[in-house]
Amino acid sequence: MTIADLADIGRDPSTGGYRRYAWNDADMELREWFAGEAAARGLELVEDGNGNQFAWWGSGGDALLIGSHLDSVPDGGAYDGPLGVVSSFAAVDRLKDEGVVPSRPVVIGNFADEEGARFGIACAGSQLITGALSADRALAQKDRDGVTMAEVLKARGRDPQAVGTTDLLDQIGTFVELHVEQGRSLVHTGDAVGVASAIWPHGRWRLDFCGEANHAGATVMEDRRDPMQAYAATVLASRRLASDAGARATFGRLEVEPGGTNAIPSRVRAWLDARAADEATLDRLVDNVIAAAQAEAGLDGTTVELTTESVSPAVDFDAALRDRLATLLDAPVLPTGAGHDAGVLSAHIPTAMLFVRNPTGVSHSPAEFAEDADCEAGIVALAAVVRELAT
Amino acid sequence: MTIADLADIGRDPSTGGYRRYAWNDADMELREWFAGEAAARGLELVEDGNGNQFAWWGSGGDALLIGSHLDSVPDGGAYDGPLGVVSSFAAVDRLKDEGVVPSRPVVIGNFADEEGARFGIACAGSQLITGALSADRALAQKDRDGVTMAEVLKARGRDPQAVGTTDLLDQIGTFVELHVEQGRSLVHTGDAVGVASAIWPHGRWRLDFCGEANHAGATVMEDRRDPMQAYAATVLASRRLASDAGARATFGRLEVEPGGTNAIPSRVRAWLDARAADEATLDRLVDNVIAAAQAEAGLDGTTVELTTESVSPAVDFDAALRDRLATLLDAPVLPTGAGHDAGVLSAHIPTAMLFVRNPTGVSHSPAEFAEDADCEAGIVALAAVVRELAT
Repeated sequence: MTIADLADIGRDPSTGGYRRYAWNDADMELREWFAGEAAARGLELVEDGNGNQFAWWGSGGDALLIGSHLDSVPDGGAYDGPLGVVSSFAAVDRLKDEGVVPSRPVVIGNFADEEGARFGIACAGSQLITGALSADRALAQKDRDGVTMAEVLKARGRDPQAVGTTDLLDQIGTFVELHVEQGRSLVHTGDAVGVASAIWPHGRWRLDFCGEANHAGATVMEDRRDPMQAYAATVLASRRLASDAGARATFGRLEVEPGGTNAIPSRVRAWLDARAADEATLDRLVDNVIAAAQAEAGLDGTTVELTTESVSPAVDFDAALRDRLATLLDAPVLPTGAGHDAGVLSAHIPTAMLFVRNPTGVSHSPAEFAEDADCEAGIVALAAVVRELAT
Repeated sequence: MTIADLADIGRDPSTGGYRRYAWNDADMELREWFAGEAAARGLELVEDGNGNQFAWWGSGGDALLIGSHLDSVPDGGAYDGPLGVVSSFAAVDRLKDEGVVPSRPVVIGNFADEEGARFGIACAGSQLITGALSADRALAQKDRDGVTMAEVLKARGRDPQAVGTTDLLDQIGTFVELHVEQGRSLVHTGDAVGVASAIWPHGRWRLDFCGEANHAGATVMEDRRDPMQAYAATVLASRRLASDAGARATFGRLEVEPGGTNAIPSRVRAWLDARAADEATLDRLVDNVIAAAQAEAGLDGTTVELTTESVSPAVDFDAALRDRLATLLDAPVLPTGAGHDAGVLSAHIPTAMLFVRNPTGVSHSPAEFAEDADCEAGIVALAAVVRELAT
């Protein structure tokens, strides 16, 4: 079993990127695949009310959870998410071939809607389990076509009433998520596999730049209330502010209304993704970006409305588990700017992450890549971790 | 008959704006409405191979064409286009009531796809008639769903083979288009109706800012090739350059790929609408905007690709006709930055435009408005023009 088994599912032929969004056709096909792989190994499949899938090897409490997610960002790569799920099945295969009988249940997980590409909230599946995201808020989230998560669940034969916290945290004692690295730290250290130390605090903020639609030809520049101008100034300010703070700020999603070539926009709706090494720096960065946006808007009579869509606090993974795995694997320890389901669960149970080397550092792109040999090293490492923690 | 008769067709309930795009359901309903109004008056309806509709009062050559268009920009207003068509029917009604028998045919026209909102080319219907737009190019144009004009025409029971030049220019001797003003010149002069002197040269250019998609959290600011930055700098430069040149530049339509909140864009596709009082100024403005874009892109290893989508030369309306109508109506003469089918036809036959006062100057917006009394004055003026030119 390798990542190539999933190569054709949800891949856009024009971009080569994956479009696996919560509950879309590709996601449904991946769910079927997961269920089939569980069945083929005699693992008991459980899908919770949030759409998270779990394949149980053994039963009882204090289980060891491994796995990741199968969904993608728009035009995402093949590895972000699926590498962890595929490697989990492969590690279990390896242990079974060796005749290992685990001393505690080993569970392979596929967390729903990790990227938040459809409904705007990252790690929705794990956040619903822990209660960090309320069922009411999740169900009311709309996708880009204006369809709510509740409606989507119903259309896929799921019960919106079943969305919410589960007893998973009572059943799981440890979670280890394997993931392709999103950066080049392992290239610099020269290792195929690393262990995560921490996840930077991060969040998503929606900025609605509001002005007045008007004719692009007949309206003199001085009379315009064109919100694209304040948006543009904010994009430039965000780069400068993030650089100065050693932090990160990105505008990657945008909606322009009315969106006609010959119409001055009435509204530019822009999403800010911001991250920093600590929460004070992140707060200051976001405050400064908003202040820059408002100052610019004030210059031409436009306005900015701010909506905080999600904020994830800093995560320091369990120190004892981290050190134990780093020693076991002789692997370097490194932080990440990316959010993960492991970050959500780490607030409740001992959690660790393994990263697999990414030669270019590129992620969230069709160009995302990892060498087969490094993926194999990831499977070997994950199998070693399961042997260490569950035998 | 008033503009209110069309108030409910293609109006989006959430924005209050009109979404009447070439051959969509709203446009089909408006075509039916036009055919019905022609039939109710005993006018002979002709639809040419490009979808332009003509209602003939009388037959023969050297006809007087009046009318405008019924389609809209995204979330457009009620007046831009439909006011000219509705006023034409109303003017004919008025003349018929007075027992006028025209000395030459009077034709009411509804030009197809004037705004170019669906296929990207403004004045497509009139440009196809004159050959300014080739049938091959038009038929290959795609809408935002990737559907070609040829496919759309077939789906609406039209024959793509019939698209192209017609003999309309042989049948028409004069064209007078009535339109709501897009600006406030008539507010300043204190007149309900004005006569056009000229249309500024204008065009649409697509700028593809190309970079590299990557993870918004894991990619340090210094390593990014984020095309949103060069786009933003270009937006700010375009305002400054247009202001300095007394010209106009607008970025009102944008597509971001891959479009995920947590992904650095790989591509920002932006449309520049630019206009100026003369062609040299327009050329210089566009050159300067492109140069600014390329200079910015060069700073961070991104690139810009330029596609000229359409360029409309300056139009000076027929001087004799213009002066005759201004004298007849005792109306002021004013230029416009907006393009019109009248501008396309003016290269071939004597053409004039009447403008109806717009108290706010707002157009291409749900807030577009004209007072009922001014619309009535427009009908009276148009009836006077028909009496002057066709009796």
